[in-house]
Amino acid sequence: MADEAPFQFLHSELIQYITKSAESGDTENARNITKLEIMGFRVGQGLIERLTKDTVRFKDELDIMKFICKDFWTCVFKKQIDNLRTNHQGIYVLQDNKFRLLSQLSAGKQYLEQAPKYLAFTCGLVRGALSNLGVKSIVTAEVSVMPACKFQVMIQKM
Amino acid sequence: MADEAPFQFLHSELIQYITKSAESGDTENARNITKLEIMGFRVGQGLIERLTKDTVRFKDELDIMKFICKDFWTCVFKKQIDNLRTNHQGIYVLQDNKFRLLSQLSAGKQYLEQAPKYLAFTCGLVRGALSNLGVKSIVTAEVSVMPACKFQVMIQKM
Repeated sequence: MADEAPFQFLHSELIQYITKSAESGDTENARNITKLEIMGFRVGQGLIERLTKDTVRFKDELDIMKFICKDFWTCVFKKQIDNLRTNHQGIYVLQDNKFRLLSQLSAGKQYLEQAPKYLAFTCGLVRGALSNLGVKSIVTAEVSVMPACKFQVMIQKM
Repeated sequence: MADEAPFQFLHSELIQYITKSAESGDTENARNITKLEIMGFRVGQGLIERLTKDTVRFKDELDIMKFICKDFWTCVFKKQIDNLRTNHQGIYVLQDNKFRLLSQLSAGKQYLEQAPKYLAFTCGLVRGALSNLGVKSIVTAEVSVMPACKFQVMIQKM
């Protein structure tokens, strides 16, 4: 019951805290998004380390992505990713039809512009987790209808 | 499995973020502790609202404190408070023998001075929860041996 609530509430306090002090210029906003992304990155690194402690070695990239969609997502958001698609050339799209960190926001269109700051932390989370598994990536997110959300992962070949 | 980890990692990022920018003067430190306490207060208010949505009315103050020690603590820290004592005159001591937000710190004495910033958020959490149940309080914390921790709640009679 309400298992994800402490994380959710703490996350929203963090956003308030980081964005409150801003003069809300565009540069400042971009800087806040970056801060949130970096914090997510570090949390993702820590989490994946703990989660993969006792797992067997991953077969391939797709195997890693499936772990992110199932185990990792469930640990953080208490649900799995609803849909995973890939072009088999290093692009993955993770779709969450009811993304927990957006579910507190109203679905009105006027709130869509608020969405990026609610997604930045999670983009970092995924990037950090992948990074610790040896996969370098760029992660972006988009919302078309709240609270559904798509995360696009572009693997950077080394 | 690792259910409390996302909250734990996020909490420790928050502390890093808030204290990093400080010039680490005493005033600045005190201000950071206050910020953490206030954020905890708001998270506590939100959480208790969700947790008590379907519960019956509390009999008395002690009944409320028991709820904090069991349901509330389990929701946030995935364990109960280990010991609750009271002088029956408005002072309660909640002891957690393995407090999750300290369990990442080493137990060496030199880290004891770091403890306050790891406790401030939780003091606020308890104060916020009680406040939403109509109980005004002052909450302080002390650590003697890590990671055990005592929270003292002083009820403010109105």
